Amino acid sequence: MFIGVNMGPKRIVIDTDPGVDDAHAILFLLDADKLNMVKIEAIIVTKGNTTVENGCRNVIRLLKMKNRMDIPIYKGASYALLSNEVAASTYFGDDGMADAEYDEEPDLSIVNKKPGSLALLELVEQNPHELSLLCLAPLTNIALAAGLNGDFFENVKEVFIMGGNWRGQGNETECAEFNFHYDPEAAYMVLQKLRCPTTILPNETCMAARIDTSWRFETLINDSIDLTFMTMLERKFFKLRDIEAWTPYDLFSVLLILYPEVVVRSAEYNVTVELHGRFTRGQMILDHLRNRTSNVNIVQRIDKERVMQILLNWYHIYPNE
Amino acid sequence: MFIGVNMGPKRIVIDTDPGVDDAHAILFLLDADKLNMVKIEAIIVTKGNTTVENGCRNVIRLLKMKNRMDIPIYKGASYALLSNEVAASTYFGDDGMADAEYDEEPDLSIVNKKPGSLALLELVEQNPHELSLLCLAPLTNIALAAGLNGDFFENVKEVFIMGGNWRGQGNETECAEFNFHYDPEAAYMVLQKLRCPTTILPNETCMAARIDTSWRFETLINDSIDLTFMTMLERKFFKLRDIEAWTPYDLFSVLLILYPEVVVRSAEYNVTVELHGRFTRGQMILDHLRNRTSNVNIVQRIDKERVMQILLNWYHIYPNE
Amino acid sequence: MFIGVNMGPKRIVIDTDPGVDDAHAILFLLDADKLNMVKIEAIIVTKGNTTVENGCRNVIRLLKMKNRMDIPIYKGASYALLSNEVAASTYFGDDGMADAEYDEEPDLSIVNKKPGSLALLELVEQNPHELSLLCLAPLTNIALAAGLNGDFFENVKEVFIMGGNWRGQGNETECAEFNFHYDPEAAYMVLQKLRCPTTILPNETCMAARIDTSWRFETLINDSIDLTFMTMLERKFFKLRDIEAWTPYDLFSVLLILYPEVVVRSAEYNVTVELHGRFTRGQMILDHLRNRTSNVNIVQRIDKERVMQILLNWYHIYPNE
Amino acid sequence: MFIGVNMGPKRIVIDTDPGVDDAHAILFLLDADKLNMVKIEAIIVTKGNTTVENGCRNVIRLLKMKNRMDIPIYKGASYALLSNEVAASTYFGDDGMADAEYDEEPDLSIVNKKPGSLALLELVEQNPHELSLLCLAPLTNIALAAGLNGDFFENVKEVFIMGGNWRGQGNETECAEFNFHYDPEAAYMVLQKLRCPTTILPNETCMAARIDTSWRFETLINDSIDLTFMTMLERKFFKLRDIEAWTPYDLFSVLLILYPEVVVRSAEYNVTVELHGRFTRGQMILDHLRNRTSNVNIVQRIDKERVMQILLNWYHIYPNE
Ligand SMILES: [Ca+2]
Ligand SMILES: [Ca+2]
Ligand SMILES: [Ca+2]
Ligand SMILES: [Ca+2]
Repeated sequence: MFIGVNMGPKRIVIDTDPGVDDAHAILFLLDADKLNMVKIEAIIVTKGNTTVENGCRNVIRLLKMKNRMDIPIYKGASYALLSNEVAASTYFGDDGMADAEYDEEPDLSIVNKKPGSLALLELVEQNPHELSLLCLAPLTNIALAAGLNGDFFENVKEVFIMGGNWRGQGNETECAEFNFHYDPEAAYMVLQKLRCPTTILPNETCMAARIDTSWRFETLINDSIDLTFMTMLERKFFKLRDIEAWTPYDLFSVLLILYPEVVVRSAEYNVTVELHGRFTRGQMILDHLRNRTSNVNIVQRIDKERVMQILLNWYHIYPNE
Repeated sequence: MFIGVNMGPKRIVIDTDPGVDDAHAILFLLDADKLNMVKIEAIIVTKGNTTVENGCRNVIRLLKMKNRMDIPIYKGASYALLSNEVAASTYFGDDGMADAEYDEEPDLSIVNKKPGSLALLELVEQNPHELSLLCLAPLTNIALAAGLNGDFFENVKEVFIMGGNWRGQGNETECAEFNFHYDPEAAYMVLQKLRCPTTILPNETCMAARIDTSWRFETLINDSIDLTFMTMLERKFFKLRDIEAWTPYDLFSVLLILYPEVVVRSAEYNVTVELHGRFTRGQMILDHLRNRTSNVNIVQRIDKERVMQILLNWYHIYPNE
Repeated sequence: MFIGVNMGPKRIVIDTDPGVDDAHAILFLLDADKLNMVKIEAIIVTKGNTTVENGCRNVIRLLKMKNRMDIPIYKGASYALLSNEVAASTYFGDDGMADAEYDEEPDLSIVNKKPGSLALLELVEQNPHELSLLCLAPLTNIALAAGLNGDFFENVKEVFIMGGNWRGQGNETECAEFNFHYDPEAAYMVLQKLRCPTTILPNETCMAARIDTSWRFETLINDSIDLTFMTMLERKFFKLRDIEAWTPYDLFSVLLILYPEVVVRSAEYNVTVELHGRFTRGQMILDHLRNRTSNVNIVQRIDKERVMQILLNWYHIYPNE
Repeated sequence: MFIGVNMGPKRIVIDTDPGVDDAHAILFLLDADKLNMVKIEAIIVTKGNTTVENGCRNVIRLLKMKNRMDIPIYKGASYALLSNEVAASTYFGDDGMADAEYDEEPDLSIVNKKPGSLALLELVEQNPHELSLLCLAPLTNIALAAGLNGDFFENVKEVFIMGGNWRGQGNETECAEFNFHYDPEAAYMVLQKLRCPTTILPNETCMAARIDTSWRFETLINDSIDLTFMTMLERKFFKLRDIEAWTPYDLFSVLLILYPEVVVRSAEYNVTVELHGRFTRGQMILDHLRNRTSNVNIVQRIDKERVMQILLNWYHIYPNE
């Protein structure tokens, strides 16, 4: 994987649809930013786990909670590319963050006026080869930026995508993962136009690393602001759905960036997306016959024990003392 | 159809992939602009009949020939939305305009730096309900503008589209017309997001109005700059392909705008685009069962005799005198 | 079209899913058989307008009414090839013939035990180049016979198919006609394997010949057994649905055979069926670009006035006397 | 899994497209028949690895070699259901068995005249709940039998299928296994109509059990007729293709039947086949979300060491003595 000359902290643009697991991922990254491990350049919101307006509200809440209103927020796509008619998911509740109650309403007027995909394009053009893109949502904004300028990815340093699947196992449909299924054409465009090092964390890898619920709610617990807030959200969410385990997809993908050693197994493949199947629309397609040049690195296994240890250390929890 | 208060000449943005028939259409409109029948606000180029670079070169040639370098030219999409790998057509020759020889090379540096779809979005936002959009090419640029801002079409006055088909008869494939087939996802997006009066001139209507080749080259002929140039291009093109009749699709669509009375029959339908068929990818789909609200007016028949008379008058040709 | 040496009356095998219009067609053919205009060799039933069991009951009623229990009846496919889950239509009522009341239940035990498609295959093998196949239903049985023996169509004299469409206009879906849409894979198989003269009467041709309801119920009326029965059925059916005109698809196709002069316009095409479209599944596809050898003759227009006159003559009705 | 009252040896009908690995599987089963472990009732041939005529020739050679011309051979489908135009594979050579040279030509006239799918249907109807079906080829014949009689599978005791895939990994295309990809509609029909215990041995399971080439040609070797013949064929085949390991798919599926303990891991799923994908046509689809009732048992892992030991024992090879 290409490593740039600039060895300072990764400069990250987050594309997100929060989303309870997006929230945990963002809070984690905000702390990492404070520790100078990364620098968050902008947060761009898209439709997916909730409407783009709700997503913006949720990002504002998180930034306010952490006193980081200096980070620019952009509102991206209100719709999947082809699917005006597809509603946002309500899997994480009506507001995307488990429908908690808050004292005040976020002020949407602080969201930047520039369309998110245009802002993304300009950020990348103004900082060529400098920015890491962390994609935690349907890839609509990224696809639009790459559509606006065919050379978009030439100027991106690297991409991390939470999405897709590598063994035909879906979580949204039998065969497709939520982010890819929500906007398959966007995923297709992005994978086809990629021209920089790209890491994909797919569904099966996350599912194989699912963590015991009791550990999450009995061990990974303290009275820090972040963990108190996330525990409240995740408790509400677990009540909402009949969830058997804690699988924080987007948080996993943040850990990949901060602690690459959690990756136990990965492999390079050329991947694309099936758009036309009755059952397989949105499935990520691996070039198993190896006829095409690899375009991504797929994380196939992560070390769950390591992940759990990192989380405990991060939150200064020492259960065995 | 909604008629705005502004009763001046239509202010037109042209989206084009010239293309011999685009060339004739643009020259015709430039004269109409001179006659104050329309006002051309901008010309945006996309890939289709030729590469976007060739398209820009061709537009520059036309504007230069007519001394209208004041009209801004924008370079739009270099690729269909999903199809990086699909080459531009060479139906109209390698340069898109029948491979004529010229004394000088157009200077591409005069093309505006802003991406075409972004320019289109800004023009529409800055002139709400004022601009007529004339689409003579694959709809990539329009789809991107509408993807950038979900409310794009709210601010467009009206749209004219040369493209699609209404009886399942194609010219590029058995079932699909060239512009729709070149970027089916773009056509789908545009038709789905339309929110303003829209007229479609489809393939079958043009084919039914095809004009005798001998009339074109023996009667519609004089020594005006435009007609001399177009006769040269069309002669070269007819040599290149084994064409049986003169069917200037894009010129027909200009005539619709300037002389609405050429429309003999039209009907409102809800239309969309088939994306997933093996044979029908790119076919325009009419809601024959009338379950959805109409989104376009389809021109089903045009008066070919009238068209021929208009052309003779336009070029001051009086064959029977 | 190839005409065999045998110049006796056409020997016809009927494949049907009665169906009110199938009923009218069959009664008409039974009279034609009596007049020695044709010879009905067998009737094979399939699922479509109703279940195959109901279809068999309906055929028994018709044959009994006409004292023609000597004609063998075979029960064919209970399901479309791929679609165990798709129910029979109830467009013509729960029993497929407008839910009339009858004094006695047909005795299904008189239906031949041999599967319909196998019977069809054997009939054709035992009478090579002798039998005309009249297809009034989804093509499941024919496809199975052709699947059992790849040379099936070599031995068929000719095929008449009521089904498909030629201008992308459907009656069951926006783009597909009922018989083709009910079993698209069967239609695809049949069209691909055809090796004998084949005439298709498609949806648009029938719709353009639809007949005024008042003429049907006020003029085409007398006290013959057939017309009394059909008037009763069609009245019930018209009450069931909100029908605007009388369009007896299957009867039209019988008239084609008996009175070829009703065909005003027809054209040879290579045709196939779209299986994979979201909107176009089941649409008949014409090779508009003429790259493949024709496999069928499509009836594009029939003379409606002539049809009406033939019907009046047939039933000895002289309205103007 | 349902076990019938009849505890004699399994009575097996083999459906095959030999094919080098089919040949090994059939020879193995013929020995098992001699040992009274199974009883081979009939062998039905279909197109796939080679034409159906070549397949019949190959079966005759095998039966002749083993003096078992008493086993009836039927010629089944000459084409995949929908694909008249798709040629037989030549992966295993032009004759399907590595193009070895033989002294005499098999006499095709000994092949039964009845179409294979019809023979299969009759065998099953005459021996209800008695016959095990071993499917080593594209499922065309089975689909036709089930199409002829919707209750076909009610009377089958059990089905073993070599085919499909369970993790989206193909060997014929990126996403599909050869047998399923060769006739996806047949595979779809069979899986949908199944009504008896069914075991599937998919591609990934076989690939994970691939055996070292040197073991095959240096250790699994003796001068028995069978092994001499198969070694000759497989050597020729390995020369023909650039094969890295020995993966006798069809032989594995025979071992499943004779030695069920080679199965290390299996799971019940509802499975179907994707017909409509651009990349995924022919992929087996697992109901990962568990919304449908299971219809098959998928063998997910077999014990390769055990398989190797069974083969050595079978051929009385004791390498370590
Ligand atoms: Ca997310
Ligand atoms: Ca054009
Ligand atoms: Ca019918
Ligand atoms: Ca095989």
